[in-house]
Amino acid sequence: MSLLVVGSVALDSVETPAEVRENILGGSAVFFSYTASYFTSVRLVGAVGEDWPEEHTRLLASRRIDTSGLQMIAGGKTFRWRGKYQPNMNDRDTLEVHLNVLESFEPVLSAEHRRAPFVFLANGSPRLQTNVLDQLSGPALTVADTMDLWIRTQHDELMRLFRRIDGLVLNDSEARLLTDDENLVRAGHKVRALGPRFVIIKKGEHGAMFFGEHETYVMPAYPTPHVVDPTGAGDSFAGGMMGFLAESGNFEPRTLKEAMAYGILVASFNVEGFGLDRLRTVERPDIDRRMAEYRRMLSF
Amino acid sequence: MSLLVVGSVALDSVETPAEVRENILGGSAVFFSYTASYFTSVRLVGAVGEDWPEEHTRLLASRRIDTSGLQMIAGGKTFRWRGKYQPNMNDRDTLEVHLNVLESFEPVLSAEHRRAPFVFLANGSPRLQTNVLDQLSGPALTVADTMDLWIRTQHDELMRLFRRIDGLVLNDSEARLLTDDENLVRAGHKVRALGPRFVIIKKGEHGAMFFGEHETYVMPAYPTPHVVDPTGAGDSFAGGMMGFLAESGNFEPRTLKEAMAYGILVASFNVEGFGLDRLRTVERPDIDRRMAEYRRMLSF
Repeated sequence: MSLLVVGSVALDSVETPAEVRENILGGSAVFFSYTASYFTSVRLVGAVGEDWPEEHTRLLASRRIDTSGLQMIAGGKTFRWRGKYQPNMNDRDTLEVHLNVLESFEPVLSAEHRRAPFVFLANGSPRLQTNVLDQLSGPALTVADTMDLWIRTQHDELMRLFRRIDGLVLNDSEARLLTDDENLVRAGHKVRALGPRFVIIKKGEHGAMFFGEHETYVMPAYPTPHVVDPTGAGDSFAGGMMGFLAESGNFEPRTLKEAMAYGILVASFNVEGFGLDRLRTVERPDIDRRMAEYRRMLSF
Repeated sequence: MSLLVVGSVALDSVETPAEVRENILGGSAVFFSYTASYFTSVRLVGAVGEDWPEEHTRLLASRRIDTSGLQMIAGGKTFRWRGKYQPNMNDRDTLEVHLNVLESFEPVLSAEHRRAPFVFLANGSPRLQTNVLDQLSGPALTVADTMDLWIRTQHDELMRLFRRIDGLVLNDSEARLLTDDENLVRAGHKVRALGPRFVIIKKGEHGAMFFGEHETYVMPAYPTPHVVDPTGAGDSFAGGMMGFLAESGNFEPRTLKEAMAYGILVASFNVEGFGLDRLRTVERPDIDRRMAEYRRMLSF
């Protein structure tokens, strides 16, 4: 089934202890749609400026990604982010953010996009996410991401959004901030009590936790020794997960669990190179081979 | 098969954001032997002072723990430790350490203790751990723990010890310190290259990683919402693991993996109360029930 994502499209500059890369393809909707396209066709909605290299659109379109919702804003510049990773490769500092075209972006979905059964609202303001929700015609599954900025600045809008979505994906520090609880197990249950039917807490190199109506579980990250650039790992996780759900056409508990494992594995590939570098060398059989290894790792 | 542990026996004072407990039963050999005793009989070797409450020995002896190696040093005082946990319950500061009788403790094993097939050298100086190794008569499996202090102050002795033991258990920050590598997967392989046939990196609330000749895997912690006092979690992990190995009488790869899971579960009970409080309410069927849940959690 088809999968819609609305989110940022960016030119990232990434500094790691080993290397610096300038203006590489990034953004939540890009990592999400690239990774989801291993599993299903994806409709990407986002905005770029006149500085956008057309080759990036061609790369996305060469996958199962419909880029007709990628709007070019005349006279605008593409969203830019610059971040620097600490030696542990888990903590990072944002050095620069230029919202540019994202500052005033109000997505208007096409008739076809509105009918998408599976929808991911990548990190964006709750107001923008709600605006997208309002345009949908009866999606089967809506999942959103969020971040500390919105927890601090648009708390009420976020609370209203939570009551309208099926799933929420957020990272560990955001779950702690949102609930004022340091214990992630309690925090996960508290976030779920705010509305979403399921909540997934991402723990970076330590994996992810799932909180549903009937079950709570945790899955470790795939232990890769080659962590080059973690940018986009969270969005790749969501892309792998939602891609697999859309491919499966359901979100039964057992499908959700397998989807979470796929998300973890796709993210483990993503961190092995800058931007999409590593993923561009990965095809579905590589993911399935790693899945077989991951299953072996977890069985005893 | 019987299991020998040599390590500290302590009176701990523990400060958590919620509560302070003074002079409670603790020490690496205590947490280890209590948890190992769910699986097998344990021979504890350690030292205490004249201030040692006899009831603690009675508690240990009421389990399958041989306390004949618990030496009372005349005129001495028991080892004392005081620590304070940060609100995240994962980081802690050591406020006070009084080595007392441990300062000059030189364990002398009885003839029976020397013949133990399974041996755990709990955290102690590499010199002391080597001294114990020298007294053993052909153990089947020796596993040691260590800590940052010894990595910094007795590096050469530690390197020699590593070449004589089968397994090493250490925590994530210690593995990073020892290898100067922030990536735990690489760090684990590097530690193994120093000598031990297998290495286990403990990650606290995030579980543990195994590095063997043929396999590397990671297992998440059991997600408990009730973290009261993490003191002794690492030793409880080792106790559950070594206890299960000794009970099984082998250390084949598949036994090691199951043993690691038991270690993780026993540690998850340990953190649910101060000192041994929670473990004192737990029996083997409780552990096996949690094991069934853990297996379900990890299968998809």
